[in-house]
Amino acid sequence: MEFKILKRSKKSKARLGLLKTPHGEVETPAMVPVATQGTVKTLTSEEVAKAGTQLLIANTFHLHLKPGEELVKEMGGLHKFMNWKHPLMTDSGGFQVFSLGFGREHGMGKILKAKSDTKIVEGQQPKLLRITDDGVQFTSPLDGRKIFLNPERSIKIQEALGADIIFAFDECTSPVANHEYTKKSLERTHRWALESLRAKKNKKQALYGIVQGGKFKDLRQESAKFIGSLPFEGFGIGGSFSGTDGNKAMTDMLRWTFEELPENKPRHLLGIGYLEDIKNVIRAGVDTFDCIVPTRYARHGTAFIHSPARGLVRDRFAGGKLDISKSVYLKDKKPLDPKCDCEVCANYSRSYIAHLFKAKEVTALRHLTYHNIYFFNNFVAKIREEIKKGKI
Amino acid sequence: MEFKILKRSKKSKARLGLLKTPHGEVETPAMVPVATQGTVKTLTSEEVAKAGTQLLIANTFHLHLKPGEELVKEMGGLHKFMNWKHPLMTDSGGFQVFSLGFGREHGMGKILKAKSDTKIVEGQQPKLLRITDDGVQFTSPLDGRKIFLNPERSIKIQEALGADIIFAFDECTSPVANHEYTKKSLERTHRWALESLRAKKNKKQALYGIVQGGKFKDLRQESAKFIGSLPFEGFGIGGSFSGTDGNKAMTDMLRWTFEELPENKPRHLLGIGYLEDIKNVIRAGVDTFDCIVPTRYARHGTAFIHSPARGLVRDRFAGGKLDISKSVYLKDKKPLDPKCDCEVCANYSRSYIAHLFKAKEVTALRHLTYHNIYFFNNFVAKIREEIKKGKI
Repeated sequence: MEFKILKRSKKSKARLGLLKTPHGEVETPAMVPVATQGTVKTLTSEEVAKAGTQLLIANTFHLHLKPGEELVKEMGGLHKFMNWKHPLMTDSGGFQVFSLGFGREHGMGKILKAKSDTKIVEGQQPKLLRITDDGVQFTSPLDGRKIFLNPERSIKIQEALGADIIFAFDECTSPVANHEYTKKSLERTHRWALESLRAKKNKKQALYGIVQGGKFKDLRQESAKFIGSLPFEGFGIGGSFSGTDGNKAMTDMLRWTFEELPENKPRHLLGIGYLEDIKNVIRAGVDTFDCIVPTRYARHGTAFIHSPARGLVRDRFAGGKLDISKSVYLKDKKPLDPKCDCEVCANYSRSYIAHLFKAKEVTALRHLTYHNIYFFNNFVAKIREEIKKGKI
Repeated sequence: MEFKILKRSKKSKARLGLLKTPHGEVETPAMVPVATQGTVKTLTSEEVAKAGTQLLIANTFHLHLKPGEELVKEMGGLHKFMNWKHPLMTDSGGFQVFSLGFGREHGMGKILKAKSDTKIVEGQQPKLLRITDDGVQFTSPLDGRKIFLNPERSIKIQEALGADIIFAFDECTSPVANHEYTKKSLERTHRWALESLRAKKNKKQALYGIVQGGKFKDLRQESAKFIGSLPFEGFGIGGSFSGTDGNKAMTDMLRWTFEELPENKPRHLLGIGYLEDIKNVIRAGVDTFDCIVPTRYARHGTAFIHSPARGLVRDRFAGGKLDISKSVYLKDKKPLDPKCDCEVCANYSRSYIAHLFKAKEVTALRHLTYHNIYFFNNFVAKIREEIKKGKI
């Protein structure tokens, strides 16, 4: 893998880059849609590419469960399996340590704000997993099956899947974890980073190390220094920060982190929550970021649109959301987003998609997903243009 | 509308034709996929066309319920609403008289064989509808809403939807109905045919009359003579015949019917059940037929394939079905159908589609639907070639 920084913004830490992988190039900054089980839900891989996607991320944990990495390898690897001819990432499974653990028990996810200031103390283990220094023992919430993951196994699975970019195994801590827990967890994540580097055999894949440290400046800096000193080809920034008031916390965290990371390597922000976050994280110096928002919101009937929403401050994204389940759209001849030039907006009206949604036709979700991915990709493409023109 | 017969087979009653409509031409014989609610489930309209579909049929009864024909009209008509740029039919709603009535109560559908020789007598009305000479009063099985349909209303709805080809309102009788009931029903259907002709105002749409008469030769002949004498632009052949032993009954019925119908007008067989039926009905002289098999089977995990199935007699379709839910396909690198050149077979393996199916990803159903429609369209295209070459 190769990463070139083509231009650095003078107004912010934003950068324009080019990531070269064995499956093609990625112009950065870039949004990375999520293909959890080896598919972006409701779309074919050809459609995902047609909607402007340059890079996808698939989920190691889910693919390990179903259909299993050995099967994917036998079928020629994940690229061939899912007919994705472009660059591809897999995560490390570490996020599931969070989402099936504390996140699940406290009702938190990547795009959910923590509900309370629950204290998490060492030894207080969530029900569906046990974290030890050796690794993580999951109990599948589906069938009670036990799954053990550690750095060696995560890397082995990711090598079998064969993505262009893979991630070190880490523990993603909860936004409500205290300093003591976060520090202990961080030490483990750092040990696991070294073990991930040692475990990696495949030279064609690029391995990214993951910086953690929660919301604590000292721990973020410590983590960035340590992970930044290791021979990773890029860096993932982990944690769960989003939520309306997570924005400031996230940009602070990115600033602390990027000050300590080698400047010339690509930086991937793991899981951002909102469209409004995108400009901020790019300004902070993020090159790529994965995001479930366009796809998950689509499946709940939401289209992202250009029309200005009220009450947003000037500097943030002046976009809006359209809830297609509202009956008013049944009579609306306009496309989902009149300013969008995607094929869904060229061919179908809000009225038709609202009808399909009410009639429980999955094609409604397909149209919304396609449009949203196109919308997000286009939104980021415009930011790249702005960086090029020195406007950001 | 214009219909030209380009060639008549010497070996059978099969004919090669060209149907010209305001939205383009249809080479006949042609298979007509079903877009019940204004969409072929899981596919975009562009994909339906790409899979070789020339003509679609949408469901008047369903579209009347949701979103309502007035809304569709306001949106520019069904073609524009669903972005279907090719020829389009709507049925009359008459089939629902059967499927929500006796069919529902006796567990029969278009592709189900009648379970018993239930006697149906006049006055014994099914629970969800009341048939009188004035029309049919439905009770929606969804919300208990009352819907009244008669020839005038059916035609009015179909005019608002704006398909190229519309159908007269009829009563589709049950395959187990006796001669007495079928005769009474037929008289009603004939009266309704006259009323449908009178109700029609739109000159751009072609109106097809429907021949009924159940399994009774005298009634079929009577119906074909009567309906054939009216100024319809084509004919629909109604009834529910399919099932393994319905095949002979169906071809007999078609022979009796076509002997009495004007030869130069197009003939549409309403709802055939099996792939094996296709050659037979084309040999009997059918020009177009609608068929839920490719789409419905796809949604249950079945792909149609070229590989020979055992035990089929020489003259029938030597194809097979593949049940993608079987675990053996998880390890199968081959495409759904190695002899198929559709884009699903070009891009994806059985293994991947089996994984998607097990992982409950709707994309599995999309891939199967696309392939099956392509397969059926291709199957019929080959039959057209055979007629052209004088082989059928």
